[in-house]
Amino acid sequence: MLADGREIIYFDEAPGLGRAQVADTRPLGPRAPGPALPHGRAEWGTRWDPLAGEWVVIAAARQDRTFLPPADQCPLDPSRPGHPTEIPADSYDVAVFENRFPSLAEPLGRCEVVCFTSDHDSSFAALSPRRVRTVLEAWIDRTEALSALPGIRQVYCFENRGEEIGVTLHHPHGQIYAFPFVAPKLAQMVAQAAAYADGNLFDDLVASEVSDGVRVVTRNEHWIAFVPQAARWPYEVRIFPTVLVPDLPVLSPAAREAFGPLYLDVLRRFDALFDRPAPYIAAWHQAPVGDDGARSRFAAHLQVLSVRRAAGKLKYLAGTESGMGVWVNDIVPEQAAQRLREA
Amino acid sequence: MLADGREIIYFDEAPGLGRAQVADTRPLGPRAPGPALPHGRAEWGTRWDPLAGEWVVIAAARQDRTFLPPADQCPLDPSRPGHPTEIPADSYDVAVFENRFPSLAEPLGRCEVVCFTSDHDSSFAALSPRRVRTVLEAWIDRTEALSALPGIRQVYCFENRGEEIGVTLHHPHGQIYAFPFVAPKLAQMVAQAAAYADGNLFDDLVASEVSDGVRVVTRNEHWIAFVPQAARWPYEVRIFPTVLVPDLPVLSPAAREAFGPLYLDVLRRFDALFDRPAPYIAAWHQAPVGDDGARSRFAAHLQVLSVRRAAGKLKYLAGTESGMGVWVNDIVPEQAAQRLREA
Repeated sequence: MLADGREIIYFDEAPGLGRAQVADTRPLGPRAPGPALPHGRAEWGTRWDPLAGEWVVIAAARQDRTFLPPADQCPLDPSRPGHPTEIPADSYDVAVFENRFPSLAEPLGRCEVVCFTSDHDSSFAALSPRRVRTVLEAWIDRTEALSALPGIRQVYCFENRGEEIGVTLHHPHGQIYAFPFVAPKLAQMVAQAAAYADGNLFDDLVASEVSDGVRVVTRNEHWIAFVPQAARWPYEVRIFPTVLVPDLPVLSPAAREAFGPLYLDVLRRFDALFDRPAPYIAAWHQAPVGDDGARSRFAAHLQVLSVRRAAGKLKYLAGTESGMGVWVNDIVPEQAAQRLREA
Repeated sequence: MLADGREIIYFDEAPGLGRAQVADTRPLGPRAPGPALPHGRAEWGTRWDPLAGEWVVIAAARQDRTFLPPADQCPLDPSRPGHPTEIPADSYDVAVFENRFPSLAEPLGRCEVVCFTSDHDSSFAALSPRRVRTVLEAWIDRTEALSALPGIRQVYCFENRGEEIGVTLHHPHGQIYAFPFVAPKLAQMVAQAAAYADGNLFDDLVASEVSDGVRVVTRNEHWIAFVPQAARWPYEVRIFPTVLVPDLPVLSPAAREAFGPLYLDVLRRFDALFDRPAPYIAAWHQAPVGDDGARSRFAAHLQVLSVRRAAGKLKYLAGTESGMGVWVNDIVPEQAAQRLREA
């Protein structure tokens, strides 16, 4: 427990380290009151957009969140004497804690931070396969725990990497959002899967990519990574387990073990595309919570997308994308796959 | 007609200037073959995203489009001796021509560029009301002309302004896309309007904003501008005519005349928010072409959104937005409206 009552959970790779017993010595004030249930003019809460038929999150207090602090003031480093951080222990493997500047909190949802390593200057792509397995176990644990909270409809694990997409802390970390609604992108996939008449949409999609082959980037016995036929982003892959599952907790032990080597391969290919590390978003799509019909038709997968379209050039979302939801992609998906295979 | 066969249309504020007769003297090669109809692996064309149920545009050749040229090589300036540009005449008021680097072209659609003024260093907000009326007449003319092309389902007039959102030419200009499909954002509104049981969705939305009042930014006899109750962007307004119409060609002469003063007022408020001109997207939502049911329920309006959330800080689309379609807005809509009213 952190000084203001937020929960912290350590995922240790060795037993008996006692990290969870280390007290948070910071004089933090109490947490702000949680967001309001949907109504009127709350400064923190969800609001319904009647033209889009979607929920929007208003989170005014977050405007003051920590913004690119100097490296010696990183809140995600382990604590050291005279420099207490968000993580009281003096070392950790993987640590998860409730976000101090959440977009969603009780009673509407929850936002957690996942620290992938205590090494401030590392990156996900530089983790060991063993560590990726620990991160995956953290995602699985949190998916189960957050799915059990009242009112949660979706658990979303993701990583933003790179200042180019607005990352405000460089320390390798991801986030987990527990939503009180099914997010628009997930709702679309659920609807498409329900409307698909010829079997299972995801089965057929993966089978078609395997059969076509030209957009497959890499694969192993338990996972396959391909560029989607209608990719929206300059470099984008979707990573599916070869045995489809609705969410991460259903993955077999063998699939869990095989994930790290494949994902590290994908991330290293992204980083090798240009002269600088790739700015990317990695987004876990998991089935809605408590919707057996949707779960039976959905296949969890990881989407990795980069906004860098050429050396020194980024893909911006301008009038067609932000105004109309029409993505224009300058990179041909088959060529993106070839570049990633050769990277 | 430009040297490579592209169409150019001048919208002059005085008669008899003969601009359309000025020849394009550039030795341009022939235009590239148009995009392919949807199938397989075309490098230019539309592809269907089966997971989202949406079309994506692949436009590889566009990767080489003109990128922030020096001011003396601006392709949108009028031509001068020894420096022929995209606009052969040596002066113009408003000029529209087919984009040299289009995302869509025949037989799939069309992309046009709208130059708002020959003054390279100006901006839309600095135009006269008379000039805005001319721009509006150009949008109306092009909406009618492009709606009549075979296979066009939507005409989209928009402006991207500011390097912060990826603008590659500083000369004040907008764009018009004629889509062979109904864009996702428009399709959402059409579906919401069709599902709305208690009258007309747009009538009730505007009436509710007028009655609530707290998010109204400015209005005149024929137009009203308000921040949406569930705004997604730090600063966002929707501008509706007080007499709702499905698209711009249906606007009354009085509404056409009254648009400029109101829109200029809105844009100047955006520019006054921070110490630098606002990076913004201005997006005209118009009813789908040839869908009488949708037209009867839809209300055309202009959405203006800025990605600047604070001095020196931009709103980025990261994991929640790009991965899940969940917008998190740090600015409370009522406060955004107040700041815009006071700007």
